[in-house]
Amino acid sequence: MKQRGSILWLTGLSGAGKTTIAKGVAQELQKRNYLTEVLDGDIVRTYLSQGLGFSKQDRDTNVQRIGFVANLLSRNGIIAIAAVISPYRQVREELKQTTTNFIEIYVQAALAVCESRDVKGLYAKARAGQIKHFTGISDPYEEPINPDIICQTDQFTVEQCVNQVLHYLETQGLISTDFLDRS
Amino acid sequence: MKQRGSILWLTGLSGAGKTTIAKGVAQELQKRNYLTEVLDGDIVRTYLSQGLGFSKQDRDTNVQRIGFVANLLSRNGIIAIAAVISPYRQVREELKQTTTNFIEIYVQAALAVCESRDVKGLYAKARAGQIKHFTGISDPYEEPINPDIICQTDQFTVEQCVNQVLHYLETQGLISTDFLDRS
Repeated sequence: MKQRGSILWLTGLSGAGKTTIAKGVAQELQKRNYLTEVLDGDIVRTYLSQGLGFSKQDRDTNVQRIGFVANLLSRNGIIAIAAVISPYRQVREELKQTTTNFIEIYVQAALAVCESRDVKGLYAKARAGQIKHFTGISDPYEEPINPDIICQTDQFTVEQCVNQVLHYLETQGLISTDFLDRS
Repeated sequence: MKQRGSILWLTGLSGAGKTTIAKGVAQELQKRNYLTEVLDGDIVRTYLSQGLGFSKQDRDTNVQRIGFVANLLSRNGIIAIAAVISPYRQVREELKQTTTNFIEIYVQAALAVCESRDVKGLYAKARAGQIKHFTGISDPYEEPINPDIICQTDQFTVEQCVNQVLHYLETQGLISTDFLDRS
């Protein structure tokens, strides 16, 4: 039984919950014995994109690079889960066209909510002008127009969002429905 | 039947035959239905390492980055074949320690032979001083001390070298020996 690869691309503001959902989905998939890799924006910046900054061009390069790696995994049957702000629409659209089973997941929460969470203290620094090019504050975020999934993390729990993603994968035949009836 | 992943790391001078052997091995493995990805130095520089130059630091970053990606594949059961000059010993040793099933393959040919092949015309340019930091001419190549395989491309054919690699994988139990008796 060879599994089908895919790319779960979680885009959204800092603090929207991308990494949390990515880890939750990965954990559930691993329980079901699916091969999964999480490509988290922060980790990937260390290993793949050191030296890149936060200009539009550098952000796009970062996204393309993660997309390239995710696609190597996806086309070999691995489920690659990328959690990356990826604020620009065009480069996301390009990945959608050029990669295997790309699923765009908009991890959505109001800016005020993300800012009030401020898990890493970054919004405070951005407001104070200590971080430039900060998405949502001093840099744009271009919302997906037609994402495959929208996880509204200011209205639903992490568990609900994780299940939403798993259910989508099941309905698309990307994972089996053996566990469809879990409550 | 889940396959075992590995990293076939082909190191050697420009023109030694790394890419040719990588492609040959990949082709044979694909015939046997193994999932395989070739990470070729030149291609990878476009997708993963744009902006990096050929200083020791940049070369090491390039090698670490390819190693990171190869390991994502290897630990998920894919055979990743990297064809990269990777002239510095220490960073290769680090990869050997930190990745899954790293196999160092020294693709070896005398400098004079590589230079006489000069497939890409690079040696001529390096000799003319038009390319700086050229491995073997104006930049060092640190030979592997204890490689898992040495492919001597100035003494053996491509086919012989490819078979040498396949045979090694068979003896290590990384691929099955169903085809061991091919002539």
